[in-house]
Amino acid sequence: MNKSNRRKFIATATVLAAGTAVTDIPSIAAEKKAEDFPVVHHVFFWLKNPSSKKDLDQLVAGVKTLSAIETVHNLRVGVVASTEKRDVVDNSWAVSELIFFKDLAGQSVYQTHPIHLEFIKNCGHLWEKVIVYDAVNV
Amino acid sequence: MNKSNRRKFIATATVLAAGTAVTDIPSIAAEKKAEDFPVVHHVFFWLKNPSSKKDLDQLVAGVKTLSAIETVHNLRVGVVASTEKRDVVDNSWAVSELIFFKDLAGQSVYQTHPIHLEFIKNCGHLWEKVIVYDAVNV
Repeated sequence: MNKSNRRKFIATATVLAAGTAVTDIPSIAAEKKAEDFPVVHHVFFWLKNPSSKKDLDQLVAGVKTLSAIETVHNLRVGVVASTEKRDVVDNSWAVSELIFFKDLAGQSVYQTHPIHLEFIKNCGHLWEKVIVYDAVNV
Repeated sequence: MNKSNRRKFIATATVLAAGTAVTDIPSIAAEKKAEDFPVVHHVFFWLKNPSSKKDLDQLVAGVKTLSAIETVHNLRVGVVASTEKRDVVDNSWAVSELIFFKDLAGQSVYQTHPIHLEFIKNCGHLWEKVIVYDAVNV
């Protein structure tokens, strides 16, 4: 490589690296992620003892263990947000679980996974009601 | 730059660029995103005419318009996934809407935004029931 070509190579490499790192890759990665995990598993738990902070904390900690399941993508664990109280808003639940899966097979792996079964064994006594909504992106 | 230093510079630059572009930046970006949008707005719609594909399509298209609201991050629109029928799974709904907000203020902007009001005006006759669950990450 002569001096001029070397300069061009380094300049081009720098531009490519900067462009790739700062602009292109993250946006591509973000778009790819939403498309790659189209199965959305929404779960809402109602506690047997809604006033028990200890039970709430135990359930939150239990739900968080589910992120170790290999087919679970981007687990989010939530509590009721203090949004405006409207007729359509249900704020009677205690803990929410939101998981994205690549496909229905990934969701099936999760259902029967030892970590999921252990979670139900350890935390099942804490809730009195669960509602699950399984959606797929359109 | 002598030949040896030049080789080292190019090798180092290549490793840094590869490491940055492929590994570090996307994972940092992904983590940052989940943390930056901790308010999760789950909405489920039941259609007045559950067997009408036309009504379903119109509602899906309507929900999709909400992504133009500036505080809406990563809108997902879903239909019922064909997961296993279990007692806890509610599959009686028709369309789901999942939105991430940066904060409660962003959620308030959405509620009263002209695009949201237009959606309710155009599509409100299609549904007989809506349930909203507003969660915040813990």
